[in-house]
Amino acid sequence: MEVSEMKKVKVSVVGATGYTGVELVRILSRHPGAELVKLTTQSYAGRRMWEVYPHLYSFCGLTGEKLDLPALIEESDVIFIALPHGHSVPVAKEAVQGGKKVVDLGADFRLKDRRTYEAWYKVEHAAEELLKRAAYGLPELYREEIARASLVANPGCYPTGAVLGLAPLLKNGLIDPDTIIIDAKSGVSGAGRALSLGTHFCEVNENFKAYGVASHRHTPEIEQELSRLAGRPVTVSFTPHLLPVNRGILSTVYASLAGPVTCGELLECYRSFYAGQPFVRVLPEGILPQIKWVAGTNTCDIGLAVDLRTGRVIVVTAIDNLVKGASGQAVQNMNIMCGFPEDAALAGPSLYP
Amino acid sequence: MEVSEMKKVKVSVVGATGYTGVELVRILSRHPGAELVKLTTQSYAGRRMWEVYPHLYSFCGLTGEKLDLPALIEESDVIFIALPHGHSVPVAKEAVQGGKKVVDLGADFRLKDRRTYEAWYKVEHAAEELLKRAAYGLPELYREEIARASLVANPGCYPTGAVLGLAPLLKNGLIDPDTIIIDAKSGVSGAGRALSLGTHFCEVNENFKAYGVASHRHTPEIEQELSRLAGRPVTVSFTPHLLPVNRGILSTVYASLAGPVTCGELLECYRSFYAGQPFVRVLPEGILPQIKWVAGTNTCDIGLAVDLRTGRVIVVTAIDNLVKGASGQAVQNMNIMCGFPEDAALAGPSLYP
Amino acid sequence: MEVSEMKKVKVSVVGATGYTGVELVRILSRHPGAELVKLTTQSYAGRRMWEVYPHLYSFCGLTGEKLDLPALIEESDVIFIALPHGHSVPVAKEAVQGGKKVVDLGADFRLKDRRTYEAWYKVEHAAEELLKRAAYGLPELYREEIARASLVANPGCYPTGAVLGLAPLLKNGLIDPDTIIIDAKSGVSGAGRALSLGTHFCEVNENFKAYGVASHRHTPEIEQELSRLAGRPVTVSFTPHLLPVNRGILSTVYASLAGPVTCGELLECYRSFYAGQPFVRVLPEGILPQIKWVAGTNTCDIGLAVDLRTGRVIVVTAIDNLVKGASGQAVQNMNIMCGFPEDAALAGPSLYP
Amino acid sequence: MEVSEMKKVKVSVVGATGYTGVELVRILSRHPGAELVKLTTQSYAGRRMWEVYPHLYSFCGLTGEKLDLPALIEESDVIFIALPHGHSVPVAKEAVQGGKKVVDLGADFRLKDRRTYEAWYKVEHAAEELLKRAAYGLPELYREEIARASLVANPGCYPTGAVLGLAPLLKNGLIDPDTIIIDAKSGVSGAGRALSLGTHFCEVNENFKAYGVASHRHTPEIEQELSRLAGRPVTVSFTPHLLPVNRGILSTVYASLAGPVTCGELLECYRSFYAGQPFVRVLPEGILPQIKWVAGTNTCDIGLAVDLRTGRVIVVTAIDNLVKGASGQAVQNMNIMCGFPEDAALAGPSLYP
Repeated sequence: MEVSEMKKVKVSVVGATGYTGVELVRILSRHPGAELVKLTTQSYAGRRMWEVYPHLYSFCGLTGEKLDLPALIEESDVIFIALPHGHSVPVAKEAVQGGKKVVDLGADFRLKDRRTYEAWYKVEHAAEELLKRAAYGLPELYREEIARASLVANPGCYPTGAVLGLAPLLKNGLIDPDTIIIDAKSGVSGAGRALSLGTHFCEVNENFKAYGVASHRHTPEIEQELSRLAGRPVTVSFTPHLLPVNRGILSTVYASLAGPVTCGELLECYRSFYAGQPFVRVLPEGILPQIKWVAGTNTCDIGLAVDLRTGRVIVVTAIDNLVKGASGQAVQNMNIMCGFPEDAALAGPSLYP
Repeated sequence: MEVSEMKKVKVSVVGATGYTGVELVRILSRHPGAELVKLTTQSYAGRRMWEVYPHLYSFCGLTGEKLDLPALIEESDVIFIALPHGHSVPVAKEAVQGGKKVVDLGADFRLKDRRTYEAWYKVEHAAEELLKRAAYGLPELYREEIARASLVANPGCYPTGAVLGLAPLLKNGLIDPDTIIIDAKSGVSGAGRALSLGTHFCEVNENFKAYGVASHRHTPEIEQELSRLAGRPVTVSFTPHLLPVNRGILSTVYASLAGPVTCGELLECYRSFYAGQPFVRVLPEGILPQIKWVAGTNTCDIGLAVDLRTGRVIVVTAIDNLVKGASGQAVQNMNIMCGFPEDAALAGPSLYP
Repeated sequence: MEVSEMKKVKVSVVGATGYTGVELVRILSRHPGAELVKLTTQSYAGRRMWEVYPHLYSFCGLTGEKLDLPALIEESDVIFIALPHGHSVPVAKEAVQGGKKVVDLGADFRLKDRRTYEAWYKVEHAAEELLKRAAYGLPELYREEIARASLVANPGCYPTGAVLGLAPLLKNGLIDPDTIIIDAKSGVSGAGRALSLGTHFCEVNENFKAYGVASHRHTPEIEQELSRLAGRPVTVSFTPHLLPVNRGILSTVYASLAGPVTCGELLECYRSFYAGQPFVRVLPEGILPQIKWVAGTNTCDIGLAVDLRTGRVIVVTAIDNLVKGASGQAVQNMNIMCGFPEDAALAGPSLYP
Repeated sequence: MEVSEMKKVKVSVVGATGYTGVELVRILSRHPGAELVKLTTQSYAGRRMWEVYPHLYSFCGLTGEKLDLPALIEESDVIFIALPHGHSVPVAKEAVQGGKKVVDLGADFRLKDRRTYEAWYKVEHAAEELLKRAAYGLPELYREEIARASLVANPGCYPTGAVLGLAPLLKNGLIDPDTIIIDAKSGVSGAGRALSLGTHFCEVNENFKAYGVASHRHTPEIEQELSRLAGRPVTVSFTPHLLPVNRGILSTVYASLAGPVTCGELLECYRSFYAGQPFVRVLPEGILPQIKWVAGTNTCDIGLAVDLRTGRVIVVTAIDNLVKGASGQAVQNMNIMCGFPEDAALAGPSLYP
């Protein structure tokens, strides 16, 4: 389908003034098949988007509105929800009932098991029936399910990098699933725009720390997907860290190999697994990902090293947490749901340097 | 003209592996009317572009070549020259003689007066006759001349921000031209990719300094353009500083007002002056530019404050030094020279945050 | 006097958990003549200092307390006040009445003229009588007054850098006082630890902006001091900017020279003016300050350039906003008030890189 | 021993103009028991130290000299060698023969086994006999040996953080030594001041990458020390990464626990192990190290988490790579060798923020 033949779908963003919200606005504002119709915001209702984000001056004329759910559903074909966990359920429920397509960027529909959700997120789930209908929005694994879905649970940023890095290994039985360690490092935009001491410039700049050690909420999401790939329960050690950069997640993943294999053989396996995927780049042997190579793009870069001395494989993946880790992947999902070219509004290399 | 109707011009970049070179590659690789045919490089001849810049992996299949000038001219319609000053003259000369369009991103054709060039750049000028034929590539002031030119001297990064900030004031006689002070701050990419202690991470990070005080080579270029606007010789104090960021120049410009005027009246004057210009945003009163709002874009943001106590106007402008300050403006010039839409490959807001 | 002969004075900090407060704690905790006795805090009362600032773990055993003014005065010989403007007056008043020495790091006693204070700070001044008794705590200009004072108004960070940079010129009539422009750039710690969008990492990092243009509250303070030096009213243009670094202020100051003079002659004048000052370094000709050279120290670096083409001098000064611009200078003042060596707890070069 | 009773030893630095060299100069210039007598430099011979590092202006009057080994040995009591690997051997050999004390900050004497050295560093070792005499300069493990040694091999930066983090676990048999994974992240100063694309500001800033995966030369050093602690051969996966900060290493270490144990019990074990050590802080439960808490100090912070779900312990350690990871630890070793207080010139908390 040519760009010019695309029928424009009407798109709204619920929670448009957070970082994932404004990233959706940026991407969608140059989408040839989408028209932004409504942006809702709790904090800045009544103010034009460019007053909240002056870089949008002359690019976005919309005004942030308080959420009026019936009107929103009425006017939209596709609804993106960029709200904190626990707040997406009512919006998604009504929108799906109203026959609209929904991509939820929060955590409310990612975990298939309600009890796991409630144990890790400490809130009750108000729409268990929707969990079954929701597709897990990682197109590289679930493209067909996404294409048919009316509700897509957009993956978390850390799970996107970790699962894409491990999928070929687990699917092909190349590692011992009990030995997986995921050491991940994220830029600060992953913490959102809300104010906290943890995102104060002086506390982050020239600093580096681990956080949420052995307790981060993305752990069960990672384990759910790795278990599906392995065909058996998988438990992982997952440690996120805070990098003094705006964007990007680099994940360094360790696992014991099931048997002797060369780096070249593993890379060949990855290249087969991801053949035809527009947003995964398996890098040539000897080149490992760097976050700057993917910042601002929807690409996930993957590189490998084999450590013969220890019998382990080290997988390194890099994504932009706001693009492939959030808003870009959400638009990729919309593209699949609406029959647009999968890379519409998402193509192109990163800004360098 | 529709994008799809554009006839593709064949484009080459001489000096493609510096930061301005690779930025040209990034922009041109998504230009609907241009096809990259040759990339030359002194340091990396024989290597694919993505080996030098891995972020281009899967986006650019070209290999860097040693400069073969006759072949280059033969195969190209438009030639961008991204070489250090003094090296552009022979390339430009032959290319123009060969009937090709040339945009030079260096300093060799910016100064109309050969002696001024030789005094500040300490090299002899080998093609004085070309100086007259070269258009100064600031489209907001010289669009028609650029459209007719076969050789365009792309402005320096600092002059772009300074001249756009002062043009409406000088053109309308609103300030005393003898009182102009330009305090400018640039990101590190302006210094290029060549290795030097001054761009070592540890020397720049958490640091800030002035450099080239009362001696920077962009001074005569700024003065040439301000003098043309004022219709009389203008001398300025210009102080560049090095910011610990990758991209962006913020210029804070001071001048004594010729008479009483409000900020609103001045802004009105700016809005008239820049009406219809696709890449200048005159910001609303009370909002002053920030470099993050323009980083990655071809936009020049302008904001004003009037200081009643001192009778001075303070003009603040922001550009991305590699885009509007170099490669983006070069493509803007090519668009004008070739009859493409002026914003082809250059539209869109910045990545934020 | 030898370090070991110093009699320990009892020192308290009112407002110890802001950045200037904790910097006082750091400096005073290694002061051979001072003993920290009380730290007050509004936000963290009842918590040990190292719980609020874990880098102090094993270095500071004190617990933050709510302010109990009579007890504080009773137990302290010297009281540092690190509170927002408007809050220092009652503390300073009682402490001075109680016969204690006070150094106020806020703005409440800096401006000699109550009406100027009230016009710029928008609050009423509750202790005009104290304004006359307060010494302006810039030791390089007022050492003897400080030595006799019981109340010292510690200068603002921007005024410290600007006034030290201009004092020799104005005192010696070398410039036209009507042409002074101060373009200053500060690290983020100058904005304090309070949460605001303006100090969110993602909003500051890779960004740069001017703020408070033609309206910053340090303007009247700078003008007061420059007027005293010039012996006539001086008005300046002062523009602060926000640098994406933790610490440091670099000020670039412009003024028209009163007559022909060489850079060497000006430097000689500066060297005479600052002879014997332990915390001012007049740099050799050709070397201009960089903030990294003074970060973490109480030093003010000064460098000069003369622009023969425009008849202007450009003065560049660098300080650490939290040390010479706040807590270090406050301890320097205490040292003078108590008869300690002026550099006690303040000597030594910066950490580099 | 009181500071004032210390007899001053004459100290020289071979290779004084690299980052570890200048850090030695900074620390030693405030050491009450040491007098700097000679600084050698290959690149800057004949220039005063402050010309190379202007932050030392007024603090260091010494001039860098070409290495004249006999004269250096004649005039020095203690010699620090801060040269690239392979270059220390001749200097150390003669100095030790001349009866002087030597601390080598390079890699030449760290590995006890010559063949391991030659396999990883690809150079022949010219003084195998010295390997036996050299003490491994990690005072927390080898204080007595260091006190008696005339040649101390100062540990690598990564090994310092990794070994201190694992020592109590291995010594007490609390983990399975075959499961150790060390994921370390270092600031850029660890790469030195030499120019390379890998330390260009624009390539590092806003970026993050792994390097030397499964091949970094600190691996055999870490394994040597862990093997001594475990009493059996230990092999580890060690992955260094490059952080966009100047200083600091944070190491995240994973290992499978040998049996059930609580975090509190482990912390108790660490506190016993490091009781009385002046430069190790075992943080309270629930607090994990951040590099900013130790930057500029000789402290190693250690924090722990136990992951009950996976049966692993996660140890996080933080050091300043130039202080505890290099020059500070070297001075700590000198203090032990010379009978000075171990923390002379090394005490005090970090600069924050």
